[in-house]
Amino acid sequence: MGLEAREQGNLIGSDKVEGTAVYGADGKKIGQIERVMIDKKSGQVTYAVLSFGGFLGMGEDYYPVPWESLRYDTSLEGYQAGLTEERLRGAPKYRDESSWDWSDQATGRSVSLFYGLPVD
Amino acid sequence: MGLEAREQGNLIGSDKVEGTAVYGADGKKIGQIERVMIDKKSGQVTYAVLSFGGFLGMGEDYYPVPWESLRYDTSLEGYQAGLTEERLRGAPKYRDESSWDWSDQATGRSVSLFYGLPVD
Repeated sequence: MGLEAREQGNLIGSDKVEGTAVYGADGKKIGQIERVMIDKKSGQVTYAVLSFGGFLGMGEDYYPVPWESLRYDTSLEGYQAGLTEERLRGAPKYRDESSWDWSDQATGRSVSLFYGLPVD
Repeated sequence: MGLEAREQGNLIGSDKVEGTAVYGADGKKIGQIERVMIDKKSGQVTYAVLSFGGFLGMGEDYYPVPWESLRYDTSLEGYQAGLTEERLRGAPKYRDESSWDWSDQATGRSVSLFYGLPVD
C-alpha cells in the first residue's frame, strides 16, 4: 500500500498516523504517535497517544493528548504540539496501561484542563 | 499494551480497529478492517477500508466503507455491515491504490450512494 492511498487530500490512514513524529512548540522532535483513540459510535478521534523515551518498548510513558491539540505540519512531516517538551513531560501520562481509565470522566477533564481545552 | 488500554468504554485504539473482522448482515465473516481514514483537521473517521480475499497481501481488493455503515457487535467481536457478502462484492473498490482518489468528491458520493447514505 503506497503512501498515496494512505495520505490524500484531507484524509490520512490510521496506519500512517501511527508512528508519525511529534514535535514540540520549538520544533524539536519529542516522541511519536502510538495510536489514536476513536469514539466507537461517532467515529471521532478524541486522543492521540504519544510515546516518549523507553527502550525497545520497555519503560515507555504514554501521554494521551487531545486530537485538537496537535497540528500536522507538512514541512516537519509530523504533528506539532503547542507545548514544549519540558511542559509535555508534566502532562497526564501512564506507564502501566491498566492504570489508565479512558472511560473515567474526571481523567478526561484533567487532560482537557492540562491542554487548555474547554471542560464540559 | 494490553487490550484494556486499547478498548475501554466508548473509545477504541486505532491499532485495535485494524485487523478486526467484518461480518455480513447474515453473520458470516467477509473480511477485515485494513485501516480507517481520518479527516486530518476534524479528526473524524470517515471510512474504514475493508480487505477481502487475496493471498499474502497479493491480489487483495480494498473496499472503502463509510464508518457509519459499520456497527460493532460485541458478541461477534467484530464489525457488522448491513449488507450481505454478495452485495458487498459489488461495492466500490480498488486493487491498485494509485487508482483511488480519496480527495475526489464524485468518488466519495458514489460510495455514499452505494451504502444508502445522504449525499451532499
